[in-house]
Amino acid sequence: MLLMYGTPNTTAAQQVVNCRLYCDGRAVRDIDIEHLDEVPDAPGQLIWIGLYDPDEEVLAKVQKRFGLHELAIEDAHLAHQRPKLEVYGDTLFLVLHTARRQASEFAFGESHFFIGRGYVVTIRHGPSETFAAVRARCEAAPQMLRKGEDFILYALMDFVVDNYFPIIDAMEAEIEQIEDDIFSNRFTSDDIEKVFGLRRDLVALRHAVQPLQDICTRIMRFDVPLIDRDTYPYFRDVQDHAIKASQGLETLRENLGSALDAHLMLSSVKANEVMKKLAGWAAILAVPTAIAGIYGMNFKFMPELEWAWGYPATLAAIAGACGYLYYRFHKAGWL
Amino acid sequence: MLLMYGTPNTTAAQQVVNCRLYCDGRAVRDIDIEHLDEVPDAPGQLIWIGLYDPDEEVLAKVQKRFGLHELAIEDAHLAHQRPKLEVYGDTLFLVLHTARRQASEFAFGESHFFIGRGYVVTIRHGPSETFAAVRARCEAAPQMLRKGEDFILYALMDFVVDNYFPIIDAMEAEIEQIEDDIFSNRFTSDDIEKVFGLRRDLVALRHAVQPLQDICTRIMRFDVPLIDRDTYPYFRDVQDHAIKASQGLETLRENLGSALDAHLMLSSVKANEVMKKLAGWAAILAVPTAIAGIYGMNFKFMPELEWAWGYPATLAAIAGACGYLYYRFHKAGWL
Amino acid sequence: MLLMYGTPNTTAAQQVVNCRLYCDGRAVRDIDIEHLDEVPDAPGQLIWIGLYDPDEEVLAKVQKRFGLHELAIEDAHLAHQRPKLEVYGDTLFLVLHTARRQASEFAFGESHFFIGRGYVVTIRHGPSETFAAVRARCEAAPQMLRKGEDFILYALMDFVVDNYFPIIDAMEAEIEQIEDDIFSNRFTSDDIEKVFGLRRDLVALRHAVQPLQDICTRIMRFDVPLIDRDTYPYFRDVQDHAIKASQGLETLRENLGSALDAHLMLSSVKANEVMKKLAGWAAILAVPTAIAGIYGMNFKFMPELEWAWGYPATLAAIAGACGYLYYRFHKAGWL
Amino acid sequence: MLLMYGTPNTTAAQQVVNCRLYCDGRAVRDIDIEHLDEVPDAPGQLIWIGLYDPDEEVLAKVQKRFGLHELAIEDAHLAHQRPKLEVYGDTLFLVLHTARRQASEFAFGESHFFIGRGYVVTIRHGPSETFAAVRARCEAAPQMLRKGEDFILYALMDFVVDNYFPIIDAMEAEIEQIEDDIFSNRFTSDDIEKVFGLRRDLVALRHAVQPLQDICTRIMRFDVPLIDRDTYPYFRDVQDHAIKASQGLETLRENLGSALDAHLMLSSVKANEVMKKLAGWAAILAVPTAIAGIYGMNFKFMPELEWAWGYPATLAAIAGACGYLYYRFHKAGWL
Amino acid sequence: MLLMYGTPNTTAAQQVVNCRLYCDGRAVRDIDIEHLDEVPDAPGQLIWIGLYDPDEEVLAKVQKRFGLHELAIEDAHLAHQRPKLEVYGDTLFLVLHTARRQASEFAFGESHFFIGRGYVVTIRHGPSETFAAVRARCEAAPQMLRKGEDFILYALMDFVVDNYFPIIDAMEAEIEQIEDDIFSNRFTSDDIEKVFGLRRDLVALRHAVQPLQDICTRIMRFDVPLIDRDTYPYFRDVQDHAIKASQGLETLRENLGSALDAHLMLSSVKANEVMKKLAGWAAILAVPTAIAGIYGMNFKFMPELEWAWGYPATLAAIAGACGYLYYRFHKAGWL
Ligand SMILES: [Mg+2]
Ligand SMILES: [Mg+2]
Ligand SMILES: [Mg+2]
Ligand SMILES: [Mg+2]
Ligand SMILES: [Mg+2]
Ligand SMILES: [Mg+2]
Ligand SMILES: [Mg+2]
Ligand SMILES: [Mg+2]
Ligand SMILES: [Mg+2]
Ligand SMILES: [Mg+2]
Ligand SMILES: [Mg+2]
Ligand SMILES: [Mg+2]
Ligand SMILES: [Mg+2]
Ligand SMILES: [Mg+2]
Ligand SMILES: [Mg+2]
Ligand SMILES: [Mg+2]
Ligand SMILES: [Mg+2]
Ligand SMILES: [Mg+2]
Ligand SMILES: [Mg+2]
Ligand SMILES: [Mg+2]
Ligand SMILES: [Mg+2]
Ligand SMILES: [Mg+2]
Ligand SMILES: [Mg+2]
Ligand SMILES: [Mg+2]
Ligand SMILES: [Mg+2]
Ligand SMILES: [Mg+2]
Ligand SMILES: [Mg+2]
Ligand SMILES: [Mg+2]
Ligand SMILES: [Mg+2]
Ligand SMILES: [Mg+2]
Ligand SMILES: [Mg+2]
Repeated sequence: MLLMYGTPNTTAAQQVVNCRLYCDGRAVRDIDIEHLDEVPDAPGQLIWIGLYDPDEEVLAKVQKRFGLHELAIEDAHLAHQRPKLEVYGDTLFLVLHTARRQASEFAFGESHFFIGRGYVVTIRHGPSETFAAVRARCEAAPQMLRKGEDFILYALMDFVVDNYFPIIDAMEAEIEQIEDDIFSNRFTSDDIEKVFGLRRDLVALRHAVQPLQDICTRIMRFDVPLIDRDTYPYFRDVQDHAIKASQGLETLRENLGSALDAHLMLSSVKANEVMKKLAGWAAILAVPTAIAGIYGMNFKFMPELEWAWGYPATLAAIAGACGYLYYRFHKAGWL
Repeated sequence: MLLMYGTPNTTAAQQVVNCRLYCDGRAVRDIDIEHLDEVPDAPGQLIWIGLYDPDEEVLAKVQKRFGLHELAIEDAHLAHQRPKLEVYGDTLFLVLHTARRQASEFAFGESHFFIGRGYVVTIRHGPSETFAAVRARCEAAPQMLRKGEDFILYALMDFVVDNYFPIIDAMEAEIEQIEDDIFSNRFTSDDIEKVFGLRRDLVALRHAVQPLQDICTRIMRFDVPLIDRDTYPYFRDVQDHAIKASQGLETLRENLGSALDAHLMLSSVKANEVMKKLAGWAAILAVPTAIAGIYGMNFKFMPELEWAWGYPATLAAIAGACGYLYYRFHKAGWL
Repeated sequence: MLLMYGTPNTTAAQQVVNCRLYCDGRAVRDIDIEHLDEVPDAPGQLIWIGLYDPDEEVLAKVQKRFGLHELAIEDAHLAHQRPKLEVYGDTLFLVLHTARRQASEFAFGESHFFIGRGYVVTIRHGPSETFAAVRARCEAAPQMLRKGEDFILYALMDFVVDNYFPIIDAMEAEIEQIEDDIFSNRFTSDDIEKVFGLRRDLVALRHAVQPLQDICTRIMRFDVPLIDRDTYPYFRDVQDHAIKASQGLETLRENLGSALDAHLMLSSVKANEVMKKLAGWAAILAVPTAIAGIYGMNFKFMPELEWAWGYPATLAAIAGACGYLYYRFHKAGWL
Repeated sequence: MLLMYGTPNTTAAQQVVNCRLYCDGRAVRDIDIEHLDEVPDAPGQLIWIGLYDPDEEVLAKVQKRFGLHELAIEDAHLAHQRPKLEVYGDTLFLVLHTARRQASEFAFGESHFFIGRGYVVTIRHGPSETFAAVRARCEAAPQMLRKGEDFILYALMDFVVDNYFPIIDAMEAEIEQIEDDIFSNRFTSDDIEKVFGLRRDLVALRHAVQPLQDICTRIMRFDVPLIDRDTYPYFRDVQDHAIKASQGLETLRENLGSALDAHLMLSSVKANEVMKKLAGWAAILAVPTAIAGIYGMNFKFMPELEWAWGYPATLAAIAGACGYLYYRFHKAGWL
Repeated sequence: MLLMYGTPNTTAAQQVVNCRLYCDGRAVRDIDIEHLDEVPDAPGQLIWIGLYDPDEEVLAKVQKRFGLHELAIEDAHLAHQRPKLEVYGDTLFLVLHTARRQASEFAFGESHFFIGRGYVVTIRHGPSETFAAVRARCEAAPQMLRKGEDFILYALMDFVVDNYFPIIDAMEAEIEQIEDDIFSNRFTSDDIEKVFGLRRDLVALRHAVQPLQDICTRIMRFDVPLIDRDTYPYFRDVQDHAIKASQGLETLRENLGSALDAHLMLSSVKANEVMKKLAGWAAILAVPTAIAGIYGMNFKFMPELEWAWGYPATLAAIAGACGYLYYRFHKAGWL
């Protein structure tokens, strides 16, 4: 399922969710995006901006203030990027896919992160949880937030990855529902459409999750700017969860595949049983039709027709033949 | 689907689409290909030639002027090459496949690029968009064009790769049409032929797109001539789009596969339903035939035939048996 | 099949299975976990703690005494980790999946090991064999136990891996049972459900076994703390057994696949035979019905009806036609 | 399809196709293989021998003169080797599979090349084109032949690889024929046998072509004797053609697979249509049989039978019921 | 198919097949295994012991004399190892699977080799050819045997690998037999069981053959003890044959797969034909039944019944309708 968002049509106010200045791990004040340019760089200082579906104007302000690369800004504006990490000089540009349950549907969004010396910019596109919880968690732990941009990056990635698991669990529940339907013989055309949608969602989520392993490996390479060695265990933890999510999805895919195989086998077994049952009854019913047909002929000289016991004897013969056939078919497991 | 072009039968004028001299990022004048030899090399100068299905004579002139390798010229003349990058001394020879929608068909062409110190030669074979747009874009940005041959190479590759996306979108639309047909029960033999053609086009486009990832990696290797480090981000961007196209195609292939699986399952479910319905009605209709057959026998002594209520009773018995069967089959979900 | 354990609800006494101090390879005394903090470090000394589904309180004590990393403790508490080796400074954190047969079901558990200078902590979650046998084996061989923490790690891993083989053997027996059912024509819907469960168990066990190869390779890398070169052959042996288990599972998967393929082919052959038999008898029975129908018509002028031999001749004709058809079908192998 | 040649039973004269001495790129004279020993080594001199299915005696002479390794000679004598490059000291031993069309069948042969300082020995086994054309091409270009043994090796490999393409084209034509048969509904049991043979030929040709990529890479490694750097572009060209052939085969395999999938889907669609048509007509014909059966009963008191309009009314009822069913089935697309 | 041998129950005499002392490539004398300890090491001297299913006592003697590692001895005693090469200090421990044809079944055994400075120990488990032929070949070539332990290792491996080829040929013959059965329409349920067994044997043999490529690569690594550089071409030859065997098996697997695909397609084509034939005849026979049913009705006023030509006209109508249907079905290729 392709990502489900289109051209942004949010108002300027909606676009800037948050824009706050931090110093030594503590929030100092909110900044108006219009005056972003007027905030000078300073050691120990960090600007954390949260955007939602920003238009070119807003992005241009951010680009100008932090000197972001035109290609990265193009990506951030157009969205519909695959999960990836790009390094432009001292800036990291990270794209992640996010997943969310809306009503009974799975919806996929996209988040972009610019991380540079003294700033973090998050850009959300399409359906996704807000990062308010991440900001709150960071602000509540100044000693961690003081670690700098790399810790915020970890907190954001951790949040995105942790949000995959309820989705995977929901998918697992759906697959188990389908399995139950299959084994209790309640699998219908509607289930097939459900299976089909689920498969697409599994593929979409796999495409969201799988690149994270390489992205984490890459983040922990010595030549990536801004990432301190002492945050490596945290990114390893994100990676570990990404691998777990990835394997969970793979298992779901395999289980769905096995379930469909089982459905196929069950259908075939059942179709064979139905065919045998039908064939058996057709054979049994063909006997009276054939015998009665013979004694329905209008020949003048048919001695049996004259016999007093002809009729009951014929009935008995018919019943006997049918009974015998029934006995044989029953013994063979057809009826 | 193999590339759809054969031996060129274009006139000399058609073969040389464009041949222009640039100096410091600005167009100086058009050159007659016949007098190509007379233009001397000069620093900051660049000759950009655009050819279409050139014959051996035209190619020989270009080869002589720029000292191109005989094996590369052979490839450029015969066409039907796979996408690849060859390095002959100081010259890059690049082959890309192009895709285009013609009527409701997908058509594939081939473009060759020679890039050397002071020249760029593009050779198009078969159906493809002209590179006029690329030339116009470059001429409109002299500060970029001044970067030299590597920037033109980027602009050409970017153009080719960007042209894949409308094709992929069109394929996606066709697959969604097929899915709709499957789930709304309108899938016919014609759709199968369409699926078959689509699969071939997917394979052809995959073969066009997939090699681009390695080609870009190779272009960004330190030992490749002419490519400056500061254009690397641009080639990384081309690579990123190529990966996106590649994954999009992979997703289409998976979705088409799932859709066909769903069709198979639906067919089987439907065939089972039809079979049960048929079997049910056959059983119901076999009852009057068998009972009527018995009372159609011509035995002399059949007491029921004499009874005044024999006929209506038999009709009632038939109706009862049929009704009972209908009730049973209906309850079992067969009718 | 996902791991089958939930939130721990064991009492404190149940959680600490064992907590013993060793010196120079010999058990010195049991330690109360409450007083763990009071046991100082000393050369040649080793504390070996065995926990089962510990709560946060117990884990906190262990963490505090040995300085374990918060991320590892989080994993150890939440469980549901994939098999992995993490290195936190001087501490190894190892997760393995364990398998066990309960009644006729396969159940999967999880074991965590912390190995550091002077201590080994084992944590079991869900169904698994206790490590009492490993402890007994180690205590019975003081010259081995004196080798230190790495030897205990080997003994634990060896025990876990050895316990996979009876499970694999039991799975093999089940698959052979299924094969027998298939080839002796006793394969029913119940078997399909069994196959389905077995497939899931095979996947789960594969996920337990496969990571062990890489884990062993990693353990034997020079930069992993605590592991002496002279225990490498022991870890190579564990790895060898893990590979054997892995290949055994792969073979089972292939054999199960082949068996199902064979079932499919047999079903299809059988369905074809049934269809031919039915078709044959239907054709034979249609003949008397059609002929008798004709002579059951009530036309005034039907000369055959008047003939003395009409009836027996018709019977003979019917018998002849049926006999001929039977002969033909029998020769064609249909009946 | 295994290679189709057995023990050689050629005469001595047939075995030595050619044995010629070259000096500075020009043919000097033919050598009698019996006197091979008497030709001394000399700078700028080259002996090029062409053998066909040689026996041990002939091979022994060549081995003795050029000091070939016993294991390579064993391979060359037994044949049935896979495509490979072996380096024995200063000698290269190369095995290639050749393909040829004989009548309407594809036949596979094997060619062995010994290349050493001052000599080239070619050995053909089974069906293959002679290398006379290669020798002629080389003798016609003394400036190339002067480049030495590596150029001859290139010319031979180029010839073998170029000969794969007509075979691939012929296979493509056969697959297109099969596709046409499938979509125009003319696919029969004979086509299945053809598909089966084609699949085997595709596998055999793939086994011939695929190893060439690695062989070329290996030839261009700095530690391979005799190969000068300035012939690298030529071997890269051979490799490029090998990759193209390999991808062409892969595409054929995929297309054949798709075509068979399409056949399966078409068959299933068609079988469903036939079943519906049959079911429809069976239902329509069952109506007169059942109604007529009822009025064929011999009850004394059946008022309808006495009515003057009974018969035409019944006929009308039958016609009406049949017509109504036909209308319903037609609307449902069954008839 | 798992290896088919169990606990050894051979007598001591049977266990030691051979135990001989060699000096400078020549056999000196046989040694009693009981006095193995009394033979001192000496330069140029080599002890070659051949064991069959040895018990712990015999193995202990060998272990003591040559100082073999306990883990390797454990493997050698328990058997059921996968093919592998282990290096314990200066000793190589090699496990290979052997294949043999017994009656019409394929049987798999296991051979273990200990190779150290001055000794070679071979241990056979289960069905396999004896190594008497290898010993004889080596003793017949003292100049080769003088090369030492590595040459004996080569001779043993060469013997094992060469013995795979007759097995592969036999499997190929069986697959060809199955193909013949499929295409000549003689494929029955028994063949399915045969296919199933063959698939398992293919898997077992693949597991025997495939690891040999890596083992040979490993043997030729500079850090492996005892293997001289001048025996590398011999191990390369073994590797080459192993690759050939591996590819042969892969081809067999693919061909068997294609054959089964062909069987499936043929069955489906045939089932469709049978269905059409049946449907055709059922339609033709339903016509007289329906028409005759109508004229079998007992209405008083049925003018046709009174007509003199009613009966023949009806017969003619029936014959005409049936003939027309036959003509139509025949033209459509159904009958
Ligand atoms: Mg997994
Ligand atoms: Mg998995
Ligand atoms: Mg997968
Ligand atoms: Mg998995
Ligand atoms: Mg599976
Ligand atoms: Mg599956
Ligand atoms: Mg399948
Ligand atoms: Mg994708
Ligand atoms: Mg994809
Ligand atoms: Mg895929
Ligand atoms: Mg995908
Ligand atoms: Mg899929
Ligand atoms: Mg597919
Ligand atoms: Mg295995
Ligand atoms: Mg395996
Ligand atoms: Mg698997
Ligand atoms: Mg296997
Ligand atoms: Mg298999
Ligand atoms: Mg299989
Ligand atoms: Mg293949
Ligand atoms: Mg291809
Ligand atoms: Mg391909
Ligand atoms: Mg392909
Ligand atoms: Mg395909
Ligand atoms: Mg092969
Ligand atoms: Mg192969
Ligand atoms: Mg395989
Ligand atoms: Mg193969
Ligand atoms: Mg194949
Ligand atoms: Mg296959
Ligand atoms: Mg298939």
